[in-house]
Amino acid sequence: MNFEYSDKVKRLQAKISDFMDQYVFPNEKTYMEQISKENRFSTHPTIMEELKAKAKAEGLWNLFLPDSEDGAGLSNIEYAPLCELMGRSSIGPEVFNCAAPDTGNMEVLVRYGTDEHKEKWLKPLLNGEIRSCFSMTEPNVASSDATNIESSIIRDGDEYVINGTKWWSSGAGDPRCKIAIVMGKNDPNAEKHKQQSMILVPLDTPGVKIKRTLNVFGYDHAPHGHAEIEYNNVRVPASNMLLGEGRGFEIAQGRLGPGRIHHCMRTIGAAERALSILCERVQERIAFGKTLAEQGVIQEWIAEARMNIEQSRLLTLKAAYMMDTVGNKAAKTEIAMIKVVAPNVALQVIDHAIQALGAKGVSQDTPLAASWANIRTLRLADGPDEVHKRAIARQELKKYKKVAQGVQ
Amino acid sequence: MNFEYSDKVKRLQAKISDFMDQYVFPNEKTYMEQISKENRFSTHPTIMEELKAKAKAEGLWNLFLPDSEDGAGLSNIEYAPLCELMGRSSIGPEVFNCAAPDTGNMEVLVRYGTDEHKEKWLKPLLNGEIRSCFSMTEPNVASSDATNIESSIIRDGDEYVINGTKWWSSGAGDPRCKIAIVMGKNDPNAEKHKQQSMILVPLDTPGVKIKRTLNVFGYDHAPHGHAEIEYNNVRVPASNMLLGEGRGFEIAQGRLGPGRIHHCMRTIGAAERALSILCERVQERIAFGKTLAEQGVIQEWIAEARMNIEQSRLLTLKAAYMMDTVGNKAAKTEIAMIKVVAPNVALQVIDHAIQALGAKGVSQDTPLAASWANIRTLRLADGPDEVHKRAIARQELKKYKKVAQGVQ
Amino acid sequence: MNFEYSDKVKRLQAKISDFMDQYVFPNEKTYMEQISKENRFSTHPTIMEELKAKAKAEGLWNLFLPDSEDGAGLSNIEYAPLCELMGRSSIGPEVFNCAAPDTGNMEVLVRYGTDEHKEKWLKPLLNGEIRSCFSMTEPNVASSDATNIESSIIRDGDEYVINGTKWWSSGAGDPRCKIAIVMGKNDPNAEKHKQQSMILVPLDTPGVKIKRTLNVFGYDHAPHGHAEIEYNNVRVPASNMLLGEGRGFEIAQGRLGPGRIHHCMRTIGAAERALSILCERVQERIAFGKTLAEQGVIQEWIAEARMNIEQSRLLTLKAAYMMDTVGNKAAKTEIAMIKVVAPNVALQVIDHAIQALGAKGVSQDTPLAASWANIRTLRLADGPDEVHKRAIARQELKKYKKVAQGVQ
Amino acid sequence: MNFEYSDKVKRLQAKISDFMDQYVFPNEKTYMEQISKENRFSTHPTIMEELKAKAKAEGLWNLFLPDSEDGAGLSNIEYAPLCELMGRSSIGPEVFNCAAPDTGNMEVLVRYGTDEHKEKWLKPLLNGEIRSCFSMTEPNVASSDATNIESSIIRDGDEYVINGTKWWSSGAGDPRCKIAIVMGKNDPNAEKHKQQSMILVPLDTPGVKIKRTLNVFGYDHAPHGHAEIEYNNVRVPASNMLLGEGRGFEIAQGRLGPGRIHHCMRTIGAAERALSILCERVQERIAFGKTLAEQGVIQEWIAEARMNIEQSRLLTLKAAYMMDTVGNKAAKTEIAMIKVVAPNVALQVIDHAIQALGAKGVSQDTPLAASWANIRTLRLADGPDEVHKRAIARQELKKYKKVAQGVQ
Repeated sequence: MNFEYSDKVKRLQAKISDFMDQYVFPNEKTYMEQISKENRFSTHPTIMEELKAKAKAEGLWNLFLPDSEDGAGLSNIEYAPLCELMGRSSIGPEVFNCAAPDTGNMEVLVRYGTDEHKEKWLKPLLNGEIRSCFSMTEPNVASSDATNIESSIIRDGDEYVINGTKWWSSGAGDPRCKIAIVMGKNDPNAEKHKQQSMILVPLDTPGVKIKRTLNVFGYDHAPHGHAEIEYNNVRVPASNMLLGEGRGFEIAQGRLGPGRIHHCMRTIGAAERALSILCERVQERIAFGKTLAEQGVIQEWIAEARMNIEQSRLLTLKAAYMMDTVGNKAAKTEIAMIKVVAPNVALQVIDHAIQALGAKGVSQDTPLAASWANIRTLRLADGPDEVHKRAIARQELKKYKKVAQGVQ
Repeated sequence: MNFEYSDKVKRLQAKISDFMDQYVFPNEKTYMEQISKENRFSTHPTIMEELKAKAKAEGLWNLFLPDSEDGAGLSNIEYAPLCELMGRSSIGPEVFNCAAPDTGNMEVLVRYGTDEHKEKWLKPLLNGEIRSCFSMTEPNVASSDATNIESSIIRDGDEYVINGTKWWSSGAGDPRCKIAIVMGKNDPNAEKHKQQSMILVPLDTPGVKIKRTLNVFGYDHAPHGHAEIEYNNVRVPASNMLLGEGRGFEIAQGRLGPGRIHHCMRTIGAAERALSILCERVQERIAFGKTLAEQGVIQEWIAEARMNIEQSRLLTLKAAYMMDTVGNKAAKTEIAMIKVVAPNVALQVIDHAIQALGAKGVSQDTPLAASWANIRTLRLADGPDEVHKRAIARQELKKYKKVAQGVQ
Repeated sequence: MNFEYSDKVKRLQAKISDFMDQYVFPNEKTYMEQISKENRFSTHPTIMEELKAKAKAEGLWNLFLPDSEDGAGLSNIEYAPLCELMGRSSIGPEVFNCAAPDTGNMEVLVRYGTDEHKEKWLKPLLNGEIRSCFSMTEPNVASSDATNIESSIIRDGDEYVINGTKWWSSGAGDPRCKIAIVMGKNDPNAEKHKQQSMILVPLDTPGVKIKRTLNVFGYDHAPHGHAEIEYNNVRVPASNMLLGEGRGFEIAQGRLGPGRIHHCMRTIGAAERALSILCERVQERIAFGKTLAEQGVIQEWIAEARMNIEQSRLLTLKAAYMMDTVGNKAAKTEIAMIKVVAPNVALQVIDHAIQALGAKGVSQDTPLAASWANIRTLRLADGPDEVHKRAIARQELKKYKKVAQGVQ
Repeated sequence: MNFEYSDKVKRLQAKISDFMDQYVFPNEKTYMEQISKENRFSTHPTIMEELKAKAKAEGLWNLFLPDSEDGAGLSNIEYAPLCELMGRSSIGPEVFNCAAPDTGNMEVLVRYGTDEHKEKWLKPLLNGEIRSCFSMTEPNVASSDATNIESSIIRDGDEYVINGTKWWSSGAGDPRCKIAIVMGKNDPNAEKHKQQSMILVPLDTPGVKIKRTLNVFGYDHAPHGHAEIEYNNVRVPASNMLLGEGRGFEIAQGRLGPGRIHHCMRTIGAAERALSILCERVQERIAFGKTLAEQGVIQEWIAEARMNIEQSRLLTLKAAYMMDTVGNKAAKTEIAMIKVVAPNVALQVIDHAIQALGAKGVSQDTPLAASWANIRTLRLADGPDEVHKRAIARQELKKYKKVAQGVQ
């Protein structure tokens, strides 16, 4: 066993850390200011393009893509500590073209896309010229059980016809978002896990209507935006089908592994940032005759934050290691575990930081409140905690011989 | 011991409950829609005035004022269950002219105001014609220890001159807000708890500048608004001083008791509403072959919600009972206890409700996310949990003979 | 609403409190010493009989029995604060003839016993001359679901024949224990909740064999003892049947209400004692330059203990009030709630006290460790927490119209 | 980074695992039975010597000793997974001569002992012929702050004279225990961390009196025993001093690192065993129409157990890795973290297992209750959680530039 990062990783860590300190953190405020108050979903902050250009120039670009000629050839365990560093700022991942949901979508295209798909969609995504969304969750069913999904993708001649309403299609609020991966049923009579397909739908196709964007607590997340989209008799060429009819679940599984672990890495970064904000603040503020840093309860929060962050990072790295060595499928329990652990740890750290900062902590004057709201969604996205815990438990129970046949 | 509400209270409960069902809940959406997207702090939703007129006509008005000819003559324990009912909607309290911070400010004026103060400010507040704010917290010091407050209120001839920066002056974003109660130091050399005074400052006085409003987890709370206010050589007549120089702490103590318990009552109402939303939803949604209501983990959340809500309500009622019978000062430990307990209980219930609803729960489509953010501030407002727990502990330790002299 | 105890209760509180201070606490050590090291289940500490005589002489006897000529005529809400005081010592309840399981068994005999039962068993129990046990739980089935119970009680002429193995028949280790109330199936074909009966079995009946006693975290609880009992073709007169065949559930329900709430009251007493031990100790001990009482984390424990004890006491009193006013059945949800809440609160308080005392806290030098172990069993006895939470949740869900039919 | 165990470790894991299955688990009951009921501290179960002989014969002996010719030459990270396997049984560690406090004491002798010390005490300890104790904690002071320790070790000619009372000298109840390492003050005027020394005291020296043994919850832990020892003018040769006067702290630091991490490894083993007991049981038991394994709440417990055990194991391994690579001192924060994390994780898992098993779980019929009680002491031994959390927090705060000078 060896807990050291490789020299290559250490070099990249230093580079990204410098870049964050020099360019990203100082421009968070600029980014917020550049989002127009009135047309929040039609303006794109120019600072983002400037930062992207800088990152690209320094070779800090598309680092998320493992084993690909298009990426940096980093394994999951190599990418993890880098992704964590980016995750310390809400604008960090996009700067390095490593932001969700594009990363997941690009991976789908790399793995399952045809040459045509790659030329048309993957290339501009890799260049940071367009953005994409993932259109799976539906308002009318409990999407945590993906077999519930009801939108339809029906073959009609050389085309597929898509109907249904999706929401939480994150990123679709942005005018730069050009393409959606849509999940839906093509055969309700097939075996349960073979009913769903995934298909590429350009957002300018007739019948695609972005009805509104959803808020996360009070944040609209402009210009990104979590869209509710109506697909009304939307017709796309049959060649837009990914991998083949009925293979939606298969793609979802492949997509979600890396996607989930990237979220966890960023989440740990956000927790580290909250802890650093807390630690700096409590050494400045004085109440009842001593600094907050000298108060026992604050010290307990700090210790618990450090213990929990360390543990969740190690678990994330182990999951990444397993994805690299035995594959995403064999690592599914480890992925489920970090999917549950990381957001809960981070939410607790951020909540304590908010509490230590007082009213300032809930306001726009620090990244804490926005970070909390953002990470709170991760306890729901890609399945709520409870669904993952159920899966972990069932996996554990299987180890014992006397498994009752009826265990669900 | 008798755990029954009086007949009078039961009648009022029924009346308010009906009013909420008939007029308030159905108009929450209208209220939100009437807040202009572009001039959020200059428009006042007309629906609110309609609802206020209705409530006033039914005699459901100013119920919060205990022992006053201006109010309904309800004791704290009588008002508690009514306040809880109003608290189930974020727009509820204002409808009945029972909204913070006006209620606290009106109480200050009733108790400590001169006839002139009452005529000029209390009367229009009681009529719901104007609104008010409480300007105590400062951005530059840990206001949880109120001796830290640094704004100055200095006598100069027949006037007082006020200087300083305040924030979280809630309600000051609203153009209908006309008067502030400002706390500041008039004598830095006086005994520690005699340095601070409170004074009335009309918001249109020269030198009063509302710099901006603060967000709460992305919510701007328009048109109410949590304002940062600069007081720059603001001059008011000496007669605007409340109670006398150096008596700010005394007023704060008197004001905070009822203010805190009202918040707790409303908070319990919000928790009840979240639980009802959860219970309705989980009986509709199906995942993995059964309704969410049949899942053991969901049932555990419901049971814990019910157990914790019941207990926090009983503790709130006991605190109210003590305020009524032995006075706010003697009830201070009980008030501190519910101040800590109620928001924490409600936050947990709401968080579980959000989790049960999935992504919908964090959005604008239910009151849950906004309610959570709102109540999260109550763990900080009027002193963070930790300050109150410290006070409770010190009170407990005093019961034992061997109290070490150095206990802080 | 009125949160005051009646004058009668206050007088009894003072009397019992004095008695505890003067006689019970100072003799806890004597009691432990009088339990022989070698024949732990055959010696009965003489100090107990001396204390019982004193309590009886002062009229502090059988206070648990509500509405009975044999008891003190106290309602549940009147008895609650008295029971709490007794519960502060592990030997307290027996001193006042208010110890489990005798209290529950006496109530069963008062309610459902024939004149003969009363003369033969109730009278000596009321006099504190004999003790009794309740033989329900079985080692081979999940007794939390009482329909699982498998022992048989079969009519054979003028007798019933009892077969089965019971355990956790608490008190049966004591040679003074003369009578058991045994639950078992008399008709496996009856409707599910009509299969079980309860019958009186004198422990000296042939075929009754006490196989061993069970430990609770290392404690053997001698001379009381939690017995495993084999009933092997045990024959008792048919007149020993309580209430009639198939009415075991009915009796269990009636018995468990008061029994559960008494446990809760005592548990709150135990929590109060732990808190007092903690508070005294932390003012004496010094670490890192200040007393433990000055450490913020310790203060947080104290505050949480006070807040949680207050709330659990209020909930217990409300449940008692409901039992008095609307009956045990209508109070079932409230009883279930305190059944869950009180032990969990007390365990946390005691655990914190242990932590504050250091290694002394886990030893025989304070009542803390024994109290913790004892109360830990209450999260299991009469149904585990989870079963009660499930019941509370189902009751809550019933309030909503759209109750899915399949909710279990 | 590499999360794989080496082949050497995997081979030893398999060997120890087989040994545990074949010899240790099946003999736990025999061991308990062989402890006499009446002379619990004078009988030594013969089965233990049989098992030791077997383990020694298989080369599974003294594996704990890192980098030593006397041990197996295993690094901390190599020993960790082996120690975990042994820790699954309370009698496991002694079987392999890897039990506390002997392991810590042997390490002290290896590092700091003279040739004479080694010949006389280390050799028979390494052979498993005698046992030893560590006499540091005192009843009269808060020993969590070791500067409080008051026993005296005063030079008098060629001897040292030891006076003081110690308790929790674990192992001293056993007649095989021959030697104590005693900590005490030799110079109260020296610099604070130079006042304490450690010295070897044979237990048969005149003036050494074992007053009694202490219980842990109700367990006496015979024949081991946690002794209270009076040292009354005990005289030992000056050559018994370890390392030199005033170097007690230095030795304590050196001793505690490995000692703490070994406890953590065993604790994780105990948690794994509890989880396996839980998983087996819940698949057998049926309540309310389905197995407990199908109940959502039970599944949540299992998932949380798995997530927490995985994380605490990784943190333990990382601490071991750091001890191996940068040394015990540089690893002190990591050691403090696992010292806090591992027992808390295990206690939660065991508590859930107890809850799932019902009353059986608190009894002598499973290892759960004894394991819980044992591990509960680890939240206190070698410093309570709170002291370690304080240290972790202070270490964290040091990372920030603006460290207030007064931070304690």
